[in-house]
Amino acid sequence: MVDYGIKFWSNDDFIIDNGVVKVNYKNKPALIEIVNEVREKGYKGPLLIRFPHLIEKQIEKIFTTFESSIQEYKYKGSFKAVFPLKVNQMPNFVLPLVACSEDKCYGLEAGSKSELIVAMAYTNKGSPITVNGFKDKEMISLGFVAANMGHDITLTIEGLNELETIIEVVKEMGEPYPKIGLRIRLHSTGTGIWAKSGGINSKFGLTSTELLEAIKLLEDSHLLHKFTMIHFHIGSQISDISPLKKAIREVGNIYAELRKMGATSLTCVNIGGGLAVEYTQHEGSNNRNYTLSEFSGDVVFSLKEIVKNKKEPEPDIYIESGRYISANHAVLIAPVLELFSQEYDEKALKLKEKNPPLIAEMLDLYQSMSEKNAIEYLHDSFDHMESLLTLFDLGYIDLQDRSNTEVLVHLIIKKVIKLLKYKNHNDIIRIQEQVQERYLLNCSFFQSLPDYWGLGQNFPVMPLDRLNRRPTRSASLWDITCDSDGEITFDSSKPLFLHDVDVTKEEYFLGFFLVGAYQEVLGMRHNLFTHPTELSVVFDDDLNKGYEIENLLEAQTILDVLDDLDYDTKEIERILKQRIEENQDIDEETKKEVMGQLYIMLSENGYLRTIASSEKN
Amino acid sequence: MVDYGIKFWSNDDFIIDNGVVKVNYKNKPALIEIVNEVREKGYKGPLLIRFPHLIEKQIEKIFTTFESSIQEYKYKGSFKAVFPLKVNQMPNFVLPLVACSEDKCYGLEAGSKSELIVAMAYTNKGSPITVNGFKDKEMISLGFVAANMGHDITLTIEGLNELETIIEVVKEMGEPYPKIGLRIRLHSTGTGIWAKSGGINSKFGLTSTELLEAIKLLEDSHLLHKFTMIHFHIGSQISDISPLKKAIREVGNIYAELRKMGATSLTCVNIGGGLAVEYTQHEGSNNRNYTLSEFSGDVVFSLKEIVKNKKEPEPDIYIESGRYISANHAVLIAPVLELFSQEYDEKALKLKEKNPPLIAEMLDLYQSMSEKNAIEYLHDSFDHMESLLTLFDLGYIDLQDRSNTEVLVHLIIKKVIKLLKYKNHNDIIRIQEQVQERYLLNCSFFQSLPDYWGLGQNFPVMPLDRLNRRPTRSASLWDITCDSDGEITFDSSKPLFLHDVDVTKEEYFLGFFLVGAYQEVLGMRHNLFTHPTELSVVFDDDLNKGYEIENLLEAQTILDVLDDLDYDTKEIERILKQRIEENQDIDEETKKEVMGQLYIMLSENGYLRTIASSEKN
Repeated sequence: MVDYGIKFWSNDDFIIDNGVVKVNYKNKPALIEIVNEVREKGYKGPLLIRFPHLIEKQIEKIFTTFESSIQEYKYKGSFKAVFPLKVNQMPNFVLPLVACSEDKCYGLEAGSKSELIVAMAYTNKGSPITVNGFKDKEMISLGFVAANMGHDITLTIEGLNELETIIEVVKEMGEPYPKIGLRIRLHSTGTGIWAKSGGINSKFGLTSTELLEAIKLLEDSHLLHKFTMIHFHIGSQISDISPLKKAIREVGNIYAELRKMGATSLTCVNIGGGLAVEYTQHEGSNNRNYTLSEFSGDVVFSLKEIVKNKKEPEPDIYIESGRYISANHAVLIAPVLELFSQEYDEKALKLKEKNPPLIAEMLDLYQSMSEKNAIEYLHDSFDHMESLLTLFDLGYIDLQDRSNTEVLVHLIIKKVIKLLKYKNHNDIIRIQEQVQERYLLNCSFFQSLPDYWGLGQNFPVMPLDRLNRRPTRSASLWDITCDSDGEITFDSSKPLFLHDVDVTKEEYFLGFFLVGAYQEVLGMRHNLFTHPTELSVVFDDDLNKGYEIENLLEAQTILDVLDDLDYDTKEIERILKQRIEENQDIDEETKKEVMGQLYIMLSENGYLRTIASSEKN
Repeated sequence: MVDYGIKFWSNDDFIIDNGVVKVNYKNKPALIEIVNEVREKGYKGPLLIRFPHLIEKQIEKIFTTFESSIQEYKYKGSFKAVFPLKVNQMPNFVLPLVACSEDKCYGLEAGSKSELIVAMAYTNKGSPITVNGFKDKEMISLGFVAANMGHDITLTIEGLNELETIIEVVKEMGEPYPKIGLRIRLHSTGTGIWAKSGGINSKFGLTSTELLEAIKLLEDSHLLHKFTMIHFHIGSQISDISPLKKAIREVGNIYAELRKMGATSLTCVNIGGGLAVEYTQHEGSNNRNYTLSEFSGDVVFSLKEIVKNKKEPEPDIYIESGRYISANHAVLIAPVLELFSQEYDEKALKLKEKNPPLIAEMLDLYQSMSEKNAIEYLHDSFDHMESLLTLFDLGYIDLQDRSNTEVLVHLIIKKVIKLLKYKNHNDIIRIQEQVQERYLLNCSFFQSLPDYWGLGQNFPVMPLDRLNRRPTRSASLWDITCDSDGEITFDSSKPLFLHDVDVTKEEYFLGFFLVGAYQEVLGMRHNLFTHPTELSVVFDDDLNKGYEIENLLEAQTILDVLDDLDYDTKEIERILKQRIEENQDIDEETKKEVMGQLYIMLSENGYLRTIASSEKN
């Protein structure tokens, strides 16, 4: 059976059992069961399902793995971590995250004022806050406010100007001060010395020369004792472990050198984020070449070695992994609205008594083709089609002839596939690209999978049920936006096959997995489709069904969406009403009915609800 | 002087005069003057400035050009147009657009329920509404509601299911019905027969076979008289005119064939959007190979020829250009917060008495280089730098040595540029890539230029003033997000040079032009930066300064941003207050002060305000 590569990407969070995808936790409910429960309450359209237990699982994993490396190497520093809020700032992610990590040294990282406010409100007592990114005087003052709240906060300096501003604010606001971190500009990462990310020309960090200046500034203003951390980040979703090892070597030496220069409060090395998530559904196309244990082992071992050589104490290790913590907690469910096939059978062929010669030839190709000549005849039929379409454009054949051309070429493709079924698999897949079934999904890829549009990131996708039946259709996926980029085409190098379903009779849902990192906040409102209806599935042994649906938040209504764009929605309602009332061509009863329908529409969300000729979706 | 290619992209909307960019309209105010006026009111951070007169200008242009082609060819059909709302749904764009086009047959196109509501509320009486994209029964019913308001509305059918649903709704809701359009799946566009956009495998439209079925369905349900329009769209931002000509030929024949089959109410051909905008700042890298007159001439002439041959009446021509109408009405203004240069002078060099041999060699290269050996010595210095950085990582040299390495390599690059100044220009530009000045801009590219992130689209950019001084710095641009993708690097194939300014003493602003299409609604909230402060500049001869600032809408406050994410902002305020109050380490007066500061911050927007050591920005 086709398992959609679940063993590569699912991290054992989800399993296939009895033909359906199940949550691999406690009583193992099927995703389709959860989806049906929500839809019965009237929530149609796409759903974003969160699993808070998977947030906890990832945090546990990262702490236990690093702590076991620390034990293994008898490392004396401790392990601390922060979650970078930019990866997911949604309350139904952040609140469970802080709640489940109260017993750990797990804090939040902020990269903007708004994120810093969230961190100040919700970071557990005693857990760290780090602040990266460019900061003005207000944001630095906000850091001092956090210190006044008793937060363990570190401001990471991205440029010397920020340090000068800190010195200014120190004078104005006095103690308590936040701690100070310096971001290092590394040379050792990226694909070359001048590489964009992490290299000498990278967007962030201080050069050695600036580091020396920074130390002098700190010394002169009696702040050297607040300088506790150096920080670096070699980029998101690290596929190869070796640049990280190189970076650690470089940073370890900088740490030791800075301490030797008198920065004795410097006790932490923050290695940033970058721990990759495995998104692949296909063997041999892995996104990373290391495991978490290898990652933590390399970090701990390398740091230990360097500082031993330089005779400095082993620093505490901070990590800022966001994708690794958040990606797997969320699943996007997209109902299939419709299948657009060009699955013509011979009945669709409406041949005339006298057909254009090329059509007669195509018919002959179709009827006489065999296993041996299949590919050759296929290519001939493509040529004929090109010619016939040109004849149409020039006015020589009519629409019925053109339709017959389309039907014949599809019949020929289908016959080729049938003839070669047990032969060359690669040929078949290539031909199948030509007869893709288009699955129209009730969601917006721009809103829910923006990294697919922007970075070509593929997210694992599979149907929620029917997994004990062989999927036969080569599938391309369409969203409901009016944009031809809203399409995931069938790709013969990573083919997706789905089931042949009649969605007017039965429902069919696709799940996109690992969508919990970045996708929500980067979501674009293309065609005014907004964040889907979301909910959290919380496991509770005391309940009959073993879990509860919490924090159900419906997608915005149409009026709310327009209000967010700063439309005067009262005016919109007034104008719409007036236009109906002023229409002389309809009677009073009709006006009332139409008005009623309109008001219902305004208070619903903008996704699609029903599909043609059925009450489903 | 450097003119930033204004003659290529500005469409005469903006001109350079007296060293500043001016709006080329009425009394021609300088952009910097408008910006200063807004900033004096206290609005810092990025600004999005709209010029409603440029919306009107584009609408006028498209109507007069098509009407003149119609006259030229004595074409009997008329010209109509709709604005596709997906390109810009913001009220301060849409409301001026409908206001300035009341006298024209200029309507709105909707691709989703939310957009349809906007169209139903604001389309001028008698102007058309078209509805594209996938539709469920609710959306189709909404089309009937629009018809009940007296709107001239056409539902474009994307698949046979939609037509079946219309037939259902006809039975349920009765007259008045909306008009019906059919979207054609073309074969003639794109780069090949199976091309994604517009081709036979494209996301949208009916095949010939489906068209024949649709006509039969319409006939059987007595709706053929409502079928008035066929529609196609060959893609956004058409660079080459020839695929359009081919498409017109194909569609013209389909139009004629359908009429011959009895569809005699079919009187409109809707050619969709695609009219390109010229974004280039550099000669020879044009985005399109045609003018608007050529475009309209080709459409009118081709249609006329085809229907003459087929002896059918000349259809009305609809167009759905959005980018062409909206792009130039908006300018993004980004204040420069800081320049990050590695402009070391010799003072930064802190040589020891005894230096590592490679550093001594680099010093020698620096001192002895001449015009003749400059490039060779430059490459040698890069090699030495690589080696020295490796020595650092291995613990052989210290931080001061590493700093000296950085400084020396920069001194050498600078000397090369000086030595070769009057020599090989290309060499110099290539070397300048290595000494880019980084301009930190107070904006988010993810929020304000999403197509730069997603599609690599370049928007024309230039400083608002100092245009009578030669810009000398090869510039890379950084936004304030914590993301290394938030960077527009210096590209030697389309180099950007900016001025050397001390932003602690003087302000410097960059304008990004042609940002009025798609960028606003696609804007991502990365790091929680939201839509910038926006305003409209409306010209009025009666006013002293000739224009007025209207619809000034400040960027969201931090609390509003968090509220939009569905945080309980009252709870956030309560927790923050409580954490300050509970801190035993600070006195009551400090608590009050800190609380005051915090509250101000919460009610401001999240962009940066001040820069280091100054009151500017």
